[in-house]
Amino acid sequence: MTIRVGLIGAGIMGADHARILALELPGVTLHTVCDADGARARKIADEAGAAHVSADPLAVISDKSVDAVLIASPDHTHAPLSKACVEAGKPVLCEKPLSQDSVECLDVMAAETKLGRRLVQIGFMRRFDPSYVEMKDALRAGRIGSAVMMHNFHRNVSAPANFTGQMAITNSAPHEFDIARFVLDAEYETISVFRPRFSDPSKVGSPVFMVLSTRSGQLVNVEINNNAAYGYDVRGELIGEKGSVFLRSPVASEIHVDLQAATSYPADWRPRFAEAYRRQNAAWLKSISTGKPAGASAWDGYAATLVAEAGVQSLEKGAPAAVAPVAKPKLYEDRT
Amino acid sequence: MTIRVGLIGAGIMGADHARILALELPGVTLHTVCDADGARARKIADEAGAAHVSADPLAVISDKSVDAVLIASPDHTHAPLSKACVEAGKPVLCEKPLSQDSVECLDVMAAETKLGRRLVQIGFMRRFDPSYVEMKDALRAGRIGSAVMMHNFHRNVSAPANFTGQMAITNSAPHEFDIARFVLDAEYETISVFRPRFSDPSKVGSPVFMVLSTRSGQLVNVEINNNAAYGYDVRGELIGEKGSVFLRSPVASEIHVDLQAATSYPADWRPRFAEAYRRQNAAWLKSISTGKPAGASAWDGYAATLVAEAGVQSLEKGAPAAVAPVAKPKLYEDRT
Amino acid sequence: MTIRVGLIGAGIMGADHARILALELPGVTLHTVCDADGARARKIADEAGAAHVSADPLAVISDKSVDAVLIASPDHTHAPLSKACVEAGKPVLCEKPLSQDSVECLDVMAAETKLGRRLVQIGFMRRFDPSYVEMKDALRAGRIGSAVMMHNFHRNVSAPANFTGQMAITNSAPHEFDIARFVLDAEYETISVFRPRFSDPSKVGSPVFMVLSTRSGQLVNVEINNNAAYGYDVRGELIGEKGSVFLRSPVASEIHVDLQAATSYPADWRPRFAEAYRRQNAAWLKSISTGKPAGASAWDGYAATLVAEAGVQSLEKGAPAAVAPVAKPKLYEDRT
Amino acid sequence: MTIRVGLIGAGIMGADHARILALELPGVTLHTVCDADGARARKIADEAGAAHVSADPLAVISDKSVDAVLIASPDHTHAPLSKACVEAGKPVLCEKPLSQDSVECLDVMAAETKLGRRLVQIGFMRRFDPSYVEMKDALRAGRIGSAVMMHNFHRNVSAPANFTGQMAITNSAPHEFDIARFVLDAEYETISVFRPRFSDPSKVGSPVFMVLSTRSGQLVNVEINNNAAYGYDVRGELIGEKGSVFLRSPVASEIHVDLQAATSYPADWRPRFAEAYRRQNAAWLKSISTGKPAGASAWDGYAATLVAEAGVQSLEKGAPAAVAPVAKPKLYEDRT
Repeated sequence: MTIRVGLIGAGIMGADHARILALELPGVTLHTVCDADGARARKIADEAGAAHVSADPLAVISDKSVDAVLIASPDHTHAPLSKACVEAGKPVLCEKPLSQDSVECLDVMAAETKLGRRLVQIGFMRRFDPSYVEMKDALRAGRIGSAVMMHNFHRNVSAPANFTGQMAITNSAPHEFDIARFVLDAEYETISVFRPRFSDPSKVGSPVFMVLSTRSGQLVNVEINNNAAYGYDVRGELIGEKGSVFLRSPVASEIHVDLQAATSYPADWRPRFAEAYRRQNAAWLKSISTGKPAGASAWDGYAATLVAEAGVQSLEKGAPAAVAPVAKPKLYEDRT
Repeated sequence: MTIRVGLIGAGIMGADHARILALELPGVTLHTVCDADGARARKIADEAGAAHVSADPLAVISDKSVDAVLIASPDHTHAPLSKACVEAGKPVLCEKPLSQDSVECLDVMAAETKLGRRLVQIGFMRRFDPSYVEMKDALRAGRIGSAVMMHNFHRNVSAPANFTGQMAITNSAPHEFDIARFVLDAEYETISVFRPRFSDPSKVGSPVFMVLSTRSGQLVNVEINNNAAYGYDVRGELIGEKGSVFLRSPVASEIHVDLQAATSYPADWRPRFAEAYRRQNAAWLKSISTGKPAGASAWDGYAATLVAEAGVQSLEKGAPAAVAPVAKPKLYEDRT
Repeated sequence: MTIRVGLIGAGIMGADHARILALELPGVTLHTVCDADGARARKIADEAGAAHVSADPLAVISDKSVDAVLIASPDHTHAPLSKACVEAGKPVLCEKPLSQDSVECLDVMAAETKLGRRLVQIGFMRRFDPSYVEMKDALRAGRIGSAVMMHNFHRNVSAPANFTGQMAITNSAPHEFDIARFVLDAEYETISVFRPRFSDPSKVGSPVFMVLSTRSGQLVNVEINNNAAYGYDVRGELIGEKGSVFLRSPVASEIHVDLQAATSYPADWRPRFAEAYRRQNAAWLKSISTGKPAGASAWDGYAATLVAEAGVQSLEKGAPAAVAPVAKPKLYEDRT
Repeated sequence: MTIRVGLIGAGIMGADHARILALELPGVTLHTVCDADGARARKIADEAGAAHVSADPLAVISDKSVDAVLIASPDHTHAPLSKACVEAGKPVLCEKPLSQDSVECLDVMAAETKLGRRLVQIGFMRRFDPSYVEMKDALRAGRIGSAVMMHNFHRNVSAPANFTGQMAITNSAPHEFDIARFVLDAEYETISVFRPRFSDPSKVGSPVFMVLSTRSGQLVNVEINNNAAYGYDVRGELIGEKGSVFLRSPVASEIHVDLQAATSYPADWRPRFAEAYRRQNAAWLKSISTGKPAGASAWDGYAATLVAEAGVQSLEKGAPAAVAPVAKPKLYEDRT
C-alpha cells in the first residue's frame, strides 16, 4: 500500500521533503503540494510527480485522498495545522518548531489527548542522524560513564535578512535543545543566555551562547552562530565521567593544493543532514503503516518550546531563567 | 510505473540488494527471489516483500512479469545469465566481475551488439560513491592539474577460507581496476604483480601489490590485502601535477577513552559503500525508465577482466605482463 | 657567557625545568637545586648536573653565584620568593600562578616599580606554544575577521587527591584566563561559573564551566575538567566574524587495529607542551641576556589572579561576578 | 665540557645545523664554519656565534681545537671528508648520502675498520623522528603483528633546476631506503623502478615509484615526487598482519574559512623534521661524550647506497634489479 502525502509549504524545506519522498523512499506518493504561491507549488509538484496543487492547507488536510500530511510552511502555521491534522485523524510530520508559543503546543497535545492517540511527529531529524545515534549509543552502552556535560555548536554561513536577536533561540536552537535532551534523556532546569558583540550591527541575530542545566545535574552548552561565515557546521561533544564522544560530519574527500590540505563545508544543512532527513521520513512512513509513533512527539516539541521561552526571558533580563517543568502526559509515556 | 525486479542470488550481496530495493528506492518491486537454496530465497523474499521465489534463474529471466534482473549469484554464472537477459531483451544489473574470462565478456557484448542496444550494467558501484565522484570532479575541474599517479588500497578483515592466491586479482581487484580506469579515463598498458610473504600459510590469498601503467602514461598502484585484520578499509589518492585528492571514508563519531581517540572501521564493505550501492541501484532503475544506460557497461566489465587476466599472467611468471588493448565497439561509444 | 640558574622546587614541575635547562638549552648552567626535601633536591641536581643543593630558597636567591632564579615551589611561595628576587635584582621565571591573592601580586609589581625595571616572568608557557601562536597570528593577519568568541577546554586524567572545588578556578584555569586574554589582547569584565554534578563525591573539584565576557565584547568560555579520565587534552577554538581557528595537539602516529583507528593522548601536560616550555625557557634566558622582558609579566599574573578571584566569588554566590578593572602601570606599558 | 664543532658547508643544510647547534643544544660550541664561499661562511658564523671561518675543509678537520666535524657540503665531498675525519680520529656527523658510489662507502668503512672504532654517523635523521620511532615501537611491541609491507611517500614542492632523472633515486630516496630498512630491521633483495609521464618535460626528475622486496619477504614501496607542488609531505604506513601504523605530521592549528577546513603544509623539510634534527644532533653530541655510537653508521650509509645503485640499474634497463647483499663487518655488529 502506498501512503499518499499532502505537502504543505513549498519553500526550501518543503522542496527538500518533496525530493526525499519522490526519489528516496518507497511506499509513498506525493499527492498534493500546497503553497500560497501557486507557481511555487506547481514547480515542486512537477518535479516530484505530484498530481495536485492547492493553496488551501485545510482543504489538503481534509482531502480524503490524502493519507498523511507533511507541514513545512511558515513557523506560525505549524501548531494550528498540526492540530487540524489531529482533528482530521491524519498522521502529520511537522517541521520544527511545533510553535514558538508553548500554549499552542499544549493545544496540539490536548487534541491528541482528546483523540486518545498520537498523530504528530516533529521534524527533529537529528534524532536519526548517525552521528548523534552513535553518541547516544556510546552513552547507553556505558562506554563513557555517566553524562556530565554536552557541548553543542550550530553554525550557519549567514542569517536571513529578517533574523532578529531572539530568533537564534526560538528558531535555530530548538534543534540543539531537543537533541541534547534526547541524547541525555533529561529535562532542563535553567538557562543562561550570553551574547558577544558583533561588529556588523545589521547582523543582529548572531551569535548567542547558552548554558543550560538539566534536572539530572548535567550542563548543556549551546552556541548558535548564524553568521559563522565559514560554512554550515554542527559540532557536538558529550562528556562522560570516563570519556567523551565527538560528532563527526560527513566528508567525502580531501584536497591538497597550494600548501594546504582542505576539506569542504556545505553551504547549508542539506548535505550535512541528508541521511538524517531520509531516515526520519522513512521512520515516519513506517510509523504510519505500523501505527506505532516514531521520532519526536508533540510533547517533545512542547519541551523544546518551553526552554526556548525561558531562553528569551534570560536574553531579555540578562540573567538566568528557570525552565518550567515539563509534565509528561500519560499519552506520551509509552515511548521507548 | 513500478519496475518488477527478479533477483538471482540470495547470498550476502543478494540480500543487501533486496534490502536496498525494498526499503531505499521508490518505483521498484522485488518480484522474485531466485536461489538454488530455496530456504535462503524464501527468507530474503519474506524480508523484502517479494511475492515469488524460484530455483531456476532462466525461468526468472524469461518470466513476462519480470521487467528487469539483478544478478548476484556466483561469479561463474554472471556472464551466461547476463547474456540470457540480453537475449530476453531485459535490463540487467550484474554484480562484478562480468566474468573472469574475457572471452565470456565478449560473448555478452556480442549479444548486446546483435540486439543493437545495451542492457547490461556492471555492479562497479564505486563509480557512484561520493568520495570517488569528488575525486574525479576535482580532476576534471583542473584543481590538481593532469593526473600522474593513483594509489589504491583495498583491505578486508579476512579472506574467505576458499580464497586462492590469484583471486585477489580476479575477484577483489576488479573494483580497483575499474575505478582507477574510470577516474583517470584511461586504459591500461602493463601490470606488474608483487607479493610479500605472509606468516600464516593458510592465508594464501594475501596480500598482493600491483603496479599498472596506463596508455596515457599514468601509474596506478593497487594493494589488495584481504587479511588486513584491522577493518574494512578502502583508501585512495589521485596525484596530479598541481596537487592531490584523498578519499575519505564515512565516520560518524569519535570516542575518547583510555588515553586514546578512536574512530571505528566497519567489518565489511556494506557500511562503507551503502550510499554508493543505493545511488547505483537508483541510477539503474532510472536508466530502465529512460532507456539511457548508466554506470559501467559490459565493455567496462570486459576491460576489467582483461587487466585481471594480465595480472594473473604477471603473478604466474613473476614479471610484468602486457594488458591487451581494449577496442571499444561502436555500441559503447556514445557514453558520456 | 653562561647563565647560572638557581631552581627552587624539585617536584614534578621543577624536575622538568631542570631537564629542559640541562638538556635542551645552551648558555645556561643549573647551579643550585633547592627543596625542603633534601633527597629530592639531590636527585634532581645529580640528574641535571647541578653542583649545589639547598633547603633555603632565600639563600639561593641571595647567592652571588646565582644569576637568575626559576621558581617551581608550592603556589603560596611564588609571590614572596618572586619579590625577594626582585629585591635582589635577579631575573626570575616564576611558575603560575604568581599568587592566588591579587594583593600579593600588587606587592611584587610594587617591588618592580620601585626598582624601575621588570625582572619577573610568569610561567604562562602557552604563549609560546606553536598552536596558540598560529591562532593569534591568524587573528592578527585578519584571516578570520574580528574575534567574537573563544572556547577553551582543559582536561586532565584525574585531579590530585587534595583538589578542592575552587582550585579548578584558582589553580588550573589561570592558564586559560591568560591565554585567551593574550590571544584576544583584551581584559575581562564578568565571569559566570557553572558546575555540573559529578557522581563520585570524592572528585569534588570537577568539572567547572565558565563564561567570561571581555571589555571588548567577546565571550570566552572555559571548561576545566580535571577528572576527564580519557587523557590530558587541551582544546581551543577562536571564532572570528569570517572564520575560525582550532588548536591541534601533537600526534606522531596513528594505529589501526581491532576495528579502530586510534591516536594516543598523553597522561599529563608534559608531552603536550614540551615545545612550549622549551621555547618559554629559551625566551627567558634570552631576555636575561638582552635585558628585554619576554613572556607574561607580573602584571599579566595579576590580571589572571583578578579574574580567578572573581570566579571564586561567582562560584560561591552562584551568580555572575564582575572582574575588577586591571589598570596597567607605566612599567608594563612598553610591551609589544 | 663543551664540544667544539667544525661545520663544513654553509648552504641551506649547513645553516640549519649551525642554528641547531647554537640555539637548541647545550654542551657544544660552533668553532669554525667552512665554505668555499667566504661570505656565506662568515654570515653563518656570525649568526651562530662561531669565532672562525675557513675555506679549507681539511684544515678544519686537522685543527686541534676542533673536537668533531659536521659535514653538510656537496654530496661528492661526503665520503672523502668523512674518511679524513676518521683518519684524524675525529667524530663526524655526515649528511646523507655518504656517497653515491658504494665503493667510496667501503673506503670510509675501511678507514674505520683500520682505526678499530666507528667515528662516522650518517645524517639519516628520520631515525630520530617521533613518528617513525612510534611506528617502530608499535612493531616491536607486537601491536600490529609481523610486518608485511611498508608504503613510503616523499613529496617536495618542486625539484631544483639541476635535478636529473636518477637523482630522485640517488639523492632523495636514500632517506626512504634507510628508514624502511631501519623500521623493518631488514635488508633489501630487489628493486623495480617505475616512472609515470610528466607533462612538463623540464621537470625531468619527477616522479619515481619503486617496489622493493626485503630478504625477509616484505614489500617496501617508495614514491619520490619532487614536483608534488602542493607542499612538503612525507607519508608512511607500516602494515602488519594484525594492523597498521600511519605516520602523522606535525600540525599546530586548523583554519576554517571560505567553506573549507584547512591545515598547512610546510614549503620544505625543516619544519617537518625540526624535532628529528634536534634529537639526531643531540644524540651525536652525546655519543661523542660517551664514546658509544648513535644513529646510522657508515655501514648503514653503504646499505642505502647499494640499493640506490640497484635502483639506477632498474631505471636504466626498465626491469627489476637485484640489490647486492650487504655483508656486515664485525665493527658494525655491536649495534642495538
